[in-house]
Amino acid sequence: MNIAIFYHAGCPVCLGAEQMVADAIDHAKYAVEVVHLGEQSDRIAEAEAAGVLSVPALLLDGHVFHINFGASLDDLKK
Amino acid sequence: MNIAIFYHAGCPVCLGAEQMVADAIDHAKYAVEVVHLGEQSDRIAEAEAAGVLSVPALLLDGHVFHINFGASLDDLKK
Repeated sequence: MNIAIFYHAGCPVCLGAEQMVADAIDHAKYAVEVVHLGEQSDRIAEAEAAGVLSVPALLLDGHVFHINFGASLDDLKK
Repeated sequence: MNIAIFYHAGCPVCLGAEQMVADAIDHAKYAVEVVHLGEQSDRIAEAEAAGVLSVPALLLDGHVFHINFGASLDDLKK
């Protein structure tokens, strides 16, 4: 089983969108773990060692993908 | 079926990594389409209308995720 780790920091605006990505990953191919680095600061060193420079980031088998959804302006209007 | 569209521009260094993301998407949940905007320039307007500002970008049910893998320095050493 491949490993997918989704690192985030709990940003309330983006959380729904970030969850979309984690849910879209094929769970038959990847064991998906979601790590909130704001709450699990003991895992920041591990994320840094993997090459994570910013959150949200998706680690697929050791390859880092920095995902920039940003905040939808529509969400900010709510 | 939900729709996932992966827009890219054929960057040779990043293509393998980009493909990883497309392959990681759960094809049981999403109909995945990969669009090379360099070759299919007639679809740039559609991508722009969806909010795509840069490639590679993943559109999940209309939500844009700009993915920045960048070029691995290891790949540049090859």
